[in-house]
Amino acid sequence: MKYTDVFVIGGSAAGVVAATTAKNHTPERKVTLARLEEKVMVPCGIPYIFGSLDNSSKNIMPDTGLIKSGVDMIIDEVVSIDEKEKFCEMKSGETIFFDKLIIATGSKPTEPKWLDGRDLDNVYYIFKNKVYLDQFNEKLKSLNNIVVIGGGFIGVEMSDELKKAGKDVTLVEMKETILSLAFDKEVALEVENIVKEEGVKLITGSGIKQIIGKEGKVSAVELLDGTIIDADAVILATGYSPNTKLAESIGLNLNRKGFIKVDEYMRTDIKDIFAVGDCAEKRDFFTRRSSGAMLASIATAEARVAAMNLYKLSTLKTLSGTITIFATAMNGKGFGAAGLTESQAREEGFNVVTGTFTGMDKHPGTLPGTSKQLIKLIASKETGIILGGEVIGGMSAGEITNIIGFIIQNRMTINALLTAQIGTHPLLTGSPVQYSLIKAAEIVVKKINS
Amino acid sequence: MKYTDVFVIGGSAAGVVAATTAKNHTPERKVTLARLEEKVMVPCGIPYIFGSLDNSSKNIMPDTGLIKSGVDMIIDEVVSIDEKEKFCEMKSGETIFFDKLIIATGSKPTEPKWLDGRDLDNVYYIFKNKVYLDQFNEKLKSLNNIVVIGGGFIGVEMSDELKKAGKDVTLVEMKETILSLAFDKEVALEVENIVKEEGVKLITGSGIKQIIGKEGKVSAVELLDGTIIDADAVILATGYSPNTKLAESIGLNLNRKGFIKVDEYMRTDIKDIFAVGDCAEKRDFFTRRSSGAMLASIATAEARVAAMNLYKLSTLKTLSGTITIFATAMNGKGFGAAGLTESQAREEGFNVVTGTFTGMDKHPGTLPGTSKQLIKLIASKETGIILGGEVIGGMSAGEITNIIGFIIQNRMTINALLTAQIGTHPLLTGSPVQYSLIKAAEIVVKKINS
Repeated sequence: MKYTDVFVIGGSAAGVVAATTAKNHTPERKVTLARLEEKVMVPCGIPYIFGSLDNSSKNIMPDTGLIKSGVDMIIDEVVSIDEKEKFCEMKSGETIFFDKLIIATGSKPTEPKWLDGRDLDNVYYIFKNKVYLDQFNEKLKSLNNIVVIGGGFIGVEMSDELKKAGKDVTLVEMKETILSLAFDKEVALEVENIVKEEGVKLITGSGIKQIIGKEGKVSAVELLDGTIIDADAVILATGYSPNTKLAESIGLNLNRKGFIKVDEYMRTDIKDIFAVGDCAEKRDFFTRRSSGAMLASIATAEARVAAMNLYKLSTLKTLSGTITIFATAMNGKGFGAAGLTESQAREEGFNVVTGTFTGMDKHPGTLPGTSKQLIKLIASKETGIILGGEVIGGMSAGEITNIIGFIIQNRMTINALLTAQIGTHPLLTGSPVQYSLIKAAEIVVKKINS
Repeated sequence: MKYTDVFVIGGSAAGVVAATTAKNHTPERKVTLARLEEKVMVPCGIPYIFGSLDNSSKNIMPDTGLIKSGVDMIIDEVVSIDEKEKFCEMKSGETIFFDKLIIATGSKPTEPKWLDGRDLDNVYYIFKNKVYLDQFNEKLKSLNNIVVIGGGFIGVEMSDELKKAGKDVTLVEMKETILSLAFDKEVALEVENIVKEEGVKLITGSGIKQIIGKEGKVSAVELLDGTIIDADAVILATGYSPNTKLAESIGLNLNRKGFIKVDEYMRTDIKDIFAVGDCAEKRDFFTRRSSGAMLASIATAEARVAAMNLYKLSTLKTLSGTITIFATAMNGKGFGAAGLTESQAREEGFNVVTGTFTGMDKHPGTLPGTSKQLIKLIASKETGIILGGEVIGGMSAGEITNIIGFIIQNRMTINALLTAQIGTHPLLTGSPVQYSLIKAAEIVVKKINS
């Protein structure tokens, strides 16, 4: 039997940040984190263990932050929670009493129950478990034709990395374009060109009918239109579901999408129990609708909020809504998006105006290594508030996406952007005269005024 | 005799942006820009014509923006302004009548009148004139020992580029560290290591006594402590002064630093005459003091503000104060700063708290091309408002400096930063668990609370 003031269940991004922030914020409290595995994968680094990184041991989340902060770590599984007496039973037989509990149990790949053939050998999911991933990676070495199903970020990154590793890769996306949660169609088409240039075969606008097997193993994939694609392995990147078994066992309220309901302080509806990360409910910053977004950036922001509000609520430290900020890169091109796409905003009923500008990410454009840089801004016509942005460029595209994230979080208007001061440098940014973000804003304003 | 609605004097960053913005904002108006030279240098690209770029013709500011917008361009010099009758006499003999005048005459290198030997052959300034720079560059080819005087951004970049071009370069800075307007001492020392690694010899904390000549040419530089440094050429990078001859000729008010006085709309004290860019007065965003900063980023923001307020004032489109946002890069390392340094803030009387964190610019840190990333934040203890930030990292450092710029412009507090959502990606940014900007903010908060 043990006692801890703060007990965090889950050792990925949300759990680690919740535990370290709690310990830093209230150093006098004992903070314990329980996780299932000895070694935890950097979640967004997983696709890279199949190509750019030699193996999964280069993708381990370091424990230094936890250790330095003074968080107690245990490798054990919570089998049950007694929310009234406030203790957890562990698989090892240990009982851990707590004062505050933070559930950060994350998410797991969604099984597409409608898909025949999903139980064949060589059908894989992107679990975040090192042992599973190592076996999967080892197995892939002897397989050549890979079909990735699902053109979200994970599917796209997996495809690119497997291509890098010398595989023949086909990526199948049901929707009209890949990455449709992040990019409007015309921007997504530009991103698709980058993916195709890498040698990934792309099939969009086409669903899967079934996975075809031979002697219990994958042999092909059949599309809804009847096309057959030979396949030695199929990777299902069709989304994740919140991991809420423990939460449900104590009767925590879940929302319609299956996420644990939380308030702005990340508190569940049971006193002293918080939930953060992929398992916790998210509400969109602008639309206020329940969001299914699962990103380490969101998870860690939630974790910080929960950890800072455990013992003393601070109205200054709440989450004002989820903003999806994605970015990825391949072959020296970065692309990212923050906030709402134009089509999402229109669907929600916003009266929007957009502006797209294509400039350069260095200046003059004659400098070696210069990339084209496209920025699309989505603004509310009524208020001028920037609702979202999409970026394609070089390797600075990730931080430019973060700039748009800050613009959104501060509810900056298009007028504020027009008079904004931006630092520029030949080797690091676009030109002060043609800085893509400002030029895109000018196009928005012109449309609003016309 | 010609008439134009808007007449812009000056063809560098401020002039170009003023003219194109005016034409875009009020397309029904005739906008004319007069500049001295056929071809205009990208101002911040000038150091790169000595190394990374083959020659100055790769550093030309393109006229496409001006042409596309429909701005009339003339290559001519304004010799006098009649501010009452509203016309300019040009060197060519042409007279140009205007309704609104925007003075964007920029700056020129300050001559250090106290310095003996400054008139010797092979003493150079960094003028922005292509013809001068081409001659200078040609001359340098036969010279080897170069002493650069002045460790601001231009001096540092020149030193690095000349080193790249194979020269023996010594950089002399009077202050204790180089780049002291941007970086506090401990950060500047890290930057100095990058400069030294490039092979530039660095002498700090030492002023120049004189430039020594032989047969009318530079032969050495003598420091105040008596040290003699052999030199074939000396480059004076000791600052710039606003170019205000025309402004003075019509009696425009100048401030103590010699800049043309302007209001928040960039209007001078003569009706219908605006001033923008290096020649126009700047007031610091936080301290409200007159600032001597000269940056294309500031100049272009001013230009946009002036151009949007020419015919109709908009209280939404004013400049709320100058924020210095600098960045540069060498050898794959980027470094930048936005807002006030700790020492500037303390000198102004702010009660400040700082936090410095060193993380990585990619994650996991095992990814090829990962750089260390240092971020220092300077916050007001009283309000929690972020006053400034300093960054050293990889090539994303420029856009991270812009993130800090946006944080400052939105008067974000340290609490808002703690709960901020940041997009992360292995190849593009630091980790969500250890994102340097957030970690630095946590250190600030910890100090405030302790």
